[in-house]
Amino acid sequence: MKVGEKHFRTIWETDDALQSRGVEIIDQTLLPFRFEIVRMETVAEAVHAIMDMLVRGAPLIGATAAYGMALAMRHDSSDENIERAYSSLLGARPTAVNLRWALDDMKNILLPMKENMRPQAAFTHAAKIADEDVAQCSAIGEHGLELIEAAYEKNGRSRPVNILTHCNAGWLATVDWGTATAPIYKAHEKGIPVHVWVDETRPRNQGASLTAWELGQNGVAHTVVVDNAGGHLMQQGQVDMCIVGTDRTTRTGDVCNKIGTYLKALAAHDNAVPFYVALPGTTIDWTLRDGKDIPIEERSETEVTDMSGLDKNGNLERVRIVATGSKALNPAFDVTPAKFVTALITERGVCEASENGLAALYPRESRF
Amino acid sequence: MKVGEKHFRTIWETDDALQSRGVEIIDQTLLPFRFEIVRMETVAEAVHAIMDMLVRGAPLIGATAAYGMALAMRHDSSDENIERAYSSLLGARPTAVNLRWALDDMKNILLPMKENMRPQAAFTHAAKIADEDVAQCSAIGEHGLELIEAAYEKNGRSRPVNILTHCNAGWLATVDWGTATAPIYKAHEKGIPVHVWVDETRPRNQGASLTAWELGQNGVAHTVVVDNAGGHLMQQGQVDMCIVGTDRTTRTGDVCNKIGTYLKALAAHDNAVPFYVALPGTTIDWTLRDGKDIPIEERSETEVTDMSGLDKNGNLERVRIVATGSKALNPAFDVTPAKFVTALITERGVCEASENGLAALYPRESRF
Repeated sequence: MKVGEKHFRTIWETDDALQSRGVEIIDQTLLPFRFEIVRMETVAEAVHAIMDMLVRGAPLIGATAAYGMALAMRHDSSDENIERAYSSLLGARPTAVNLRWALDDMKNILLPMKENMRPQAAFTHAAKIADEDVAQCSAIGEHGLELIEAAYEKNGRSRPVNILTHCNAGWLATVDWGTATAPIYKAHEKGIPVHVWVDETRPRNQGASLTAWELGQNGVAHTVVVDNAGGHLMQQGQVDMCIVGTDRTTRTGDVCNKIGTYLKALAAHDNAVPFYVALPGTTIDWTLRDGKDIPIEERSETEVTDMSGLDKNGNLERVRIVATGSKALNPAFDVTPAKFVTALITERGVCEASENGLAALYPRESRF
Repeated sequence: MKVGEKHFRTIWETDDALQSRGVEIIDQTLLPFRFEIVRMETVAEAVHAIMDMLVRGAPLIGATAAYGMALAMRHDSSDENIERAYSSLLGARPTAVNLRWALDDMKNILLPMKENMRPQAAFTHAAKIADEDVAQCSAIGEHGLELIEAAYEKNGRSRPVNILTHCNAGWLATVDWGTATAPIYKAHEKGIPVHVWVDETRPRNQGASLTAWELGQNGVAHTVVVDNAGGHLMQQGQVDMCIVGTDRTTRTGDVCNKIGTYLKALAAHDNAVPFYVALPGTTIDWTLRDGKDIPIEERSETEVTDMSGLDKNGNLERVRIVATGSKALNPAFDVTPAKFVTALITERGVCEASENGLAALYPRESRF
């Protein structure tokens, strides 16, 4: 998508020769206030980028891990180093299922090869994973576009389609297009008027800082609201549909996504607002039947007690917002039961959030 | 309640002679980081205190308005000045129903009196309104205490009772005890172990800044969570009950309270967690049947886009947290339909959130 007038993916390799090739990313911890590109040279830098959330979002984490493996291969392409890189990258974020998927894919490609073939093959395959993500997100966008078009027709083309989204399942969470935002960008490009309610998404504010920023850069009308407001907006008829992403989806259609997603799904259900979840098939965990079995990452309480923003001089400043001496708890995700999900929007089409719905689109994968 | 070891109400008159008597409040905009007492001398200062939220919470707003009228009477106790003070105080916050109730009460007392009697009578009656609020909140506490005791017995006295609350319906929102917090303080004083999940309550963070602070000052165990987390906690069985306050309740039991309350009520309903609303009868609007008819105050978007806290040097600093150029919308309240409210906890007892339930406790008032 665009930053200013220039098109960017969220991760790309540099033009350098193989031995000195780097991988560049956008430091998303500085957004929306500073747009800075970071060059990674080592697997440790890739682990740091994932763990400290310079990159985030399940698909982008997967692509970053794949490129991290490629960086590891540049100077030591031994079996031992593949395993070392695999372990350290896998440990960087426990919840994202396609972190493991991308690393397994890389390992399966590389291990059977001769060592001297591995560096080039690793970059080639990481690029393929990134390209496939772009193609998948674009396909999600096309399928979701039909739902937005239908809502626009249903309103008699009389006003913009109001879409609520939570967190950032946007371009910045993927390599391009985003998952939840892909249908929105496709609709916008097609000239269908859309307006996005952007949930702030405490504690890390990925909605207010990332989703609002990328929608703004791409000219999509949007309004930021606190996470508390979405239910009220739905009661007032101001939301035509919700579209969110997911970090992990069970084979039965339970959706693990950023904390607070469940509350919006409940409100959508209570107000008969369609609640869609956009996802590439790689985020489906076919080994899991019940969302209750998904381990929920607990992150640092300082994400709750402290907040970063621009001070009056334009400097990034961190302030404490919770009463001194009070503890905080910070579960990062919650699980929305499939019964509250109207449909899943995948790269293969739109389906019911159920075992049958998913198995019809993913017959091979579902026979796990 | 206590600040340090000293007992404070949230509003009190000074010892000065009538002509120079002041009214003191705690500047709640500076909490939890600074505890500062502000002296009010004029009705304009009372309007400012209400409008700029130095005081907030329906009962405390009512008491402040009553004292504002008393301050107005000190130097001009004419009928015209009663009407002037009435209008300006009423305009300070449109949603709080007992702002109007307190002002009507004061006006009805003062207008039939001789002008020279009015200043003293106004202070006396404002003090009576404040004392009645304390008595009401204490009674709410006693009735709610029974619900907490029952939950403690139900758990086999094996662990603390986990109570989730939203915003600040605490001591700081009333003259003493609070509404939602009154049962909690009563349980704590009685030695029943309680632990409070404190919703941060964006955009103004009254939970993280006020509720956490006052619970901490009074030694009540608590943990701050972002507003997004409560549903997940309920799914995990970590919430035994919710208790919230209300700014306005319809005669049918629909509850208008801080934005986001509705989402917690939905989650409580989905997880069979009792959802209680604590209120003095003065916050019931007997003229309203349907919560949809309650006008919802829209506040400044800077409450969403900016955040205040302590910087690393201990100074209060304000930072911008939303992408530059993005708009925000800031509805301050939402309406929880009565069907999602397990019971109302009033000063007269606990009742069903319904017209019959309320009419049984308030037979005279309900015959409006």
